[in-house]
Amino acid sequence: MGVVVQQIGRADPAVIDGLAACGVATVHEAQGRTGLLASYMRPIYRGARIAGSAVTIIAPPGDNWMVHVAIEQLQAGDVLLLAPTSPCEDGYFGDLLATSAITRGCRGLILDAGVRDVRDLTEMGFPVWSKAIFAQGTIKASLGSVNIPVICAGTYVEPGDVIVADDDGVCVVKRAEAADILAKAQAREANEADKRRRLAAGELSLDVFSLREGLKALGLRYL
Amino acid sequence: MGVVVQQIGRADPAVIDGLAACGVATVHEAQGRTGLLASYMRPIYRGARIAGSAVTIIAPPGDNWMVHVAIEQLQAGDVLLLAPTSPCEDGYFGDLLATSAITRGCRGLILDAGVRDVRDLTEMGFPVWSKAIFAQGTIKASLGSVNIPVICAGTYVEPGDVIVADDDGVCVVKRAEAADILAKAQAREANEADKRRRLAAGELSLDVFSLREGLKALGLRYL
Amino acid sequence: MGVVVQQIGRADPAVIDGLAACGVATVHEAQGRTGLLASYMRPIYRGARIAGSAVTIIAPPGDNWMVHVAIEQLQAGDVLLLAPTSPCEDGYFGDLLATSAITRGCRGLILDAGVRDVRDLTEMGFPVWSKAIFAQGTIKASLGSVNIPVICAGTYVEPGDVIVADDDGVCVVKRAEAADILAKAQAREANEADKRRRLAAGELSLDVFSLREGLKALGLRYL
Amino acid sequence: MGVVVQQIGRADPAVIDGLAACGVATVHEAQGRTGLLASYMRPIYRGARIAGSAVTIIAPPGDNWMVHVAIEQLQAGDVLLLAPTSPCEDGYFGDLLATSAITRGCRGLILDAGVRDVRDLTEMGFPVWSKAIFAQGTIKASLGSVNIPVICAGTYVEPGDVIVADDDGVCVVKRAEAADILAKAQAREANEADKRRRLAAGELSLDVFSLREGLKALGLRYL
Amino acid sequence: MGVVVQQIGRADPAVIDGLAACGVATVHEAQGRTGLLASYMRPIYRGARIAGSAVTIIAPPGDNWMVHVAIEQLQAGDVLLLAPTSPCEDGYFGDLLATSAITRGCRGLILDAGVRDVRDLTEMGFPVWSKAIFAQGTIKASLGSVNIPVICAGTYVEPGDVIVADDDGVCVVKRAEAADILAKAQAREANEADKRRRLAAGELSLDVFSLREGLKALGLRYL
Amino acid sequence: MGVVVQQIGRADPAVIDGLAACGVATVHEAQGRTGLLASYMRPIYRGARIAGSAVTIIAPPGDNWMVHVAIEQLQAGDVLLLAPTSPCEDGYFGDLLATSAITRGCRGLILDAGVRDVRDLTEMGFPVWSKAIFAQGTIKASLGSVNIPVICAGTYVEPGDVIVADDDGVCVVKRAEAADILAKAQAREANEADKRRRLAAGELSLDVFSLREGLKALGLRYL
Repeated sequence: MGVVVQQIGRADPAVIDGLAACGVATVHEAQGRTGLLASYMRPIYRGARIAGSAVTIIAPPGDNWMVHVAIEQLQAGDVLLLAPTSPCEDGYFGDLLATSAITRGCRGLILDAGVRDVRDLTEMGFPVWSKAIFAQGTIKASLGSVNIPVICAGTYVEPGDVIVADDDGVCVVKRAEAADILAKAQAREANEADKRRRLAAGELSLDVFSLREGLKALGLRYL
Repeated sequence: MGVVVQQIGRADPAVIDGLAACGVATVHEAQGRTGLLASYMRPIYRGARIAGSAVTIIAPPGDNWMVHVAIEQLQAGDVLLLAPTSPCEDGYFGDLLATSAITRGCRGLILDAGVRDVRDLTEMGFPVWSKAIFAQGTIKASLGSVNIPVICAGTYVEPGDVIVADDDGVCVVKRAEAADILAKAQAREANEADKRRRLAAGELSLDVFSLREGLKALGLRYL
Repeated sequence: MGVVVQQIGRADPAVIDGLAACGVATVHEAQGRTGLLASYMRPIYRGARIAGSAVTIIAPPGDNWMVHVAIEQLQAGDVLLLAPTSPCEDGYFGDLLATSAITRGCRGLILDAGVRDVRDLTEMGFPVWSKAIFAQGTIKASLGSVNIPVICAGTYVEPGDVIVADDDGVCVVKRAEAADILAKAQAREANEADKRRRLAAGELSLDVFSLREGLKALGLRYL
Repeated sequence: MGVVVQQIGRADPAVIDGLAACGVATVHEAQGRTGLLASYMRPIYRGARIAGSAVTIIAPPGDNWMVHVAIEQLQAGDVLLLAPTSPCEDGYFGDLLATSAITRGCRGLILDAGVRDVRDLTEMGFPVWSKAIFAQGTIKASLGSVNIPVICAGTYVEPGDVIVADDDGVCVVKRAEAADILAKAQAREANEADKRRRLAAGELSLDVFSLREGLKALGLRYL
Repeated sequence: MGVVVQQIGRADPAVIDGLAACGVATVHEAQGRTGLLASYMRPIYRGARIAGSAVTIIAPPGDNWMVHVAIEQLQAGDVLLLAPTSPCEDGYFGDLLATSAITRGCRGLILDAGVRDVRDLTEMGFPVWSKAIFAQGTIKASLGSVNIPVICAGTYVEPGDVIVADDDGVCVVKRAEAADILAKAQAREANEADKRRRLAAGELSLDVFSLREGLKALGLRYL
Repeated sequence: MGVVVQQIGRADPAVIDGLAACGVATVHEAQGRTGLLASYMRPIYRGARIAGSAVTIIAPPGDNWMVHVAIEQLQAGDVLLLAPTSPCEDGYFGDLLATSAITRGCRGLILDAGVRDVRDLTEMGFPVWSKAIFAQGTIKASLGSVNIPVICAGTYVEPGDVIVADDDGVCVVKRAEAADILAKAQAREANEADKRRRLAAGELSLDVFSLREGLKALGLRYL
């Protein structure tokens, strides 16, 4: 505790933007159905789809001092990600911090805790995925750390990992694997486009995905 | 397990549409305050109000194979309804399956589990009521069944039962009682329309519903 | 139980409206980070920001008789606030009661239970903060009380206290302290406006709030 | 609502006792992994293992009037099973009702709600599986029904079905299938006894259950 | 915040001990079914039945400094009761604090948060009712208060109120009403003793409590 | 997925046993208040206090095939630790698997899912910490992995890490740090023994821990 790592690696910006375009569900599948944060992490408003490099924060319950510290570490294209040291729903973040984060080019916040001023944040277009919306104020009394590995909403995140977030939730891609996962995600999308056309034309997924044989082999009976 | 019932009864389409127009709260009252699914079943977007014949699915946790099987059984006006064999929040359904379901005339999905691609589903206007929004992918390894009776979110549903769903949640009407319940729901609506007028004009519900006497009899004291 | 208090004190309407303008997060901070209801109390639609004098209701589980009684006690500018005697998610309130409440000038409902007809309530612009959306009907069989002190969603509320509610949740201000809290909230807002300008101009919150020294004193290390 | 069915079928007492001896996990497997109540149904004390014929109760939230009605319907060897009409944790049952139930030969209570006087119930040796332990008192104001089909903790139960309950939870066996399920459960136990001996002797379950080939076929790699 | 009230009133010790003997369920009924803490407040071991005067603590999340302060305020026969300022499950209390509390004659702890060292506490015979068992350590950085009114697990508690706790949960009796409630509780017990005898002799509660007429009046039908 | 790592490092057995003797709360403090699993991980019976080297398992929801694979990898003194790939409460483990694990010298099981046969496991003295007790059966259809890093109940665990578990929950100690943490834990215990004596003799923790000055500095007021 009490450490701020100032130099972190980041993935290629084009790769990051490519992952954002693919979205959470596709990226999650592309990396073998791993990397999702828990389903209780919900966006404060619908429609945002972002990706960025994680600037990670670990903070004591009810203490948002380290968020201020972390904002100084932000570069354009980054995403803040906060995990408390024990479960907490307090409102670590509001419109003042968002105002500051936006000036640094921050794309959004992932927060395994509470957020407030959500009307303002929505108007400002600063997306947040959080465990709760809760106005409960925090203090500034104890240290945490910035840019160390954390567990956030059940998933391991290292600073500089790529965070992808949209209406389906939040997914983490290891920095070193980002380009590879993007390639797989885009291949998946291309493949799905064709399937989607066939399905839209009325073909059944049982045929498009060749599922009938396997079902028959397991003994599925039609009555 | 491992059974697909291909012939199911369905209620009169006009009755089904009448129930949709009445909405969940009214239909639920009309059948003696029964038939609701648990309150955790929430719509992925607001404003949809549907009714349809249930094509039921029971599926293992994390395995959506039977959804593909069920889609072949859909007729125009049906609603898919899925219950897992043990509690699960995985994302059984997304935009590809919705594309296919829409071509069959499916009106929506009731899912005691998770759903993903909710931005796409919202744009497509395919309504889903679910326990969770979760991008977690599923596999195709084990059989379940289609069109057998299931317990979904705490309520017993038989294939062909009428599912009514709107912003208030989800209600099930037994197929054989659908016409009767519709009549009662419509009578209730007619009665409520008059009450609503009187209330809007400033009369108190204590008087409109003749509640004062009962309260007095129980000893309510005004200080 | 079984008591209706008909005369309650209310705060100055201008103070009440001032508190509404400040919003939940600011008011909560202004009174020393106290007064919030639990984070599970969520608005049925986004964007409402209200304040009003609490007309309190305590009611048995699944019995909404006292809501009808309470509506007669409403004055323009009031907010209904209901706590059940034991945990309950049933739908105590819907569009008929809202129709009546609106004619009395009621500004909204705070309900540690369920609400239904939310599509209608949204169209009518009648805001509700509740624990659940649930169509489950209630009965009229047992007495509760109106305008007595209650615990609602974890917070003590006396009739006539000022309820402030917006997208961040719900906050209670003691009636006798309302003017004082408003002054503090407005001072806080004025102070924040200046901070916001500085942050928007790119200054860091570490400097705007003079946080660097304290962090150094506790031993924060930059690597 | 408002119905008491006085004549219900019951399974053969020897079959019921046989199912009790097999226990919940084995019986649940014997019937194809179905019939379990939700995992939140926990015993108030450890060590009881019972089976009996279900006398079912459906009751309004916070109202235990129908429990009194149901006790008159009990025969020796029965198990009371109560489902509320909407979710409720109130204490429907305590030591007085247990005193009465015991005189009728009742073997225990399954309660998708709360129970109280658990110290007394433990001393009396009257086992209860419930959703909560909660002293909250109930009233006697509204009707429910006795001996009609109910959904209890997510599972469909008809009066006269066999309830099996132990430290692992609660399982329901359809009355008509009870003898068949007992045979399967006993066969399963016999089979397991042999496996248990081999495992206790140090053989691996990979060999005892012949699991290695399937794993190899799926591509499991040993590093 | 930051206040320690050193002089608090306490109820008559004989009354307090009388309430302990009656237990939570009876006391709760005697005061009109009010005063219970939430059902999630569970004892760390079974069998304790205590009553004592509340020494109240309000503390920040994850900060147990005020517990140390409160212990100095304890008198023989008191019960510690802690509410955090926002929801928290951290372990505020363990065997060292219990060692100290016992020397002051403290009878137990009510904690709307977490407790640890539960094996030691059990061996020491120091009962705790808490929301969680959690080893998570706390800090000593911020002030709270001692002996001010608090909301604990959904119930309002003033310092000096009588806390009654047993296997059924926790109940609060207002200090000024303690003698009166004890009288009512004892009357209730006397009345119940007679009922219990009649029920044990095989009379039905429908007759012992004269419930048949009311049921008939509401239209209960026996089939 | 589909990988079994057969060679893992393990900490010194004497260190492991030393950590067990210290217990979860002390070890957690000794490593800077880190390493705890979530508070919902509860023991199936009280009184066990173990430590061992983690043999980790990641498995699909409702599929316990990999548990069989993992048992072959057990050495005397190991602890099995299972995390599902998505949230699941199914009963992955029962008495047959425990019989086998015991023959390998396994000390217990940590399971972020469900367990069954808890009466047998208790009689066998095989301790389990789990999210649920649930008889729900599992299948053997899909691969997971053994001895790869996993997130279990919110904490990162690598194979060979030391698992400490007792009535307070579960704590993970990194293998490379185990000896150092043991030294710190034992120093802490020695220090606590002295404090405990002083507290038992009636000294106040305010004095034993020198807390009065800090409180005064922050402005604590005694009234």
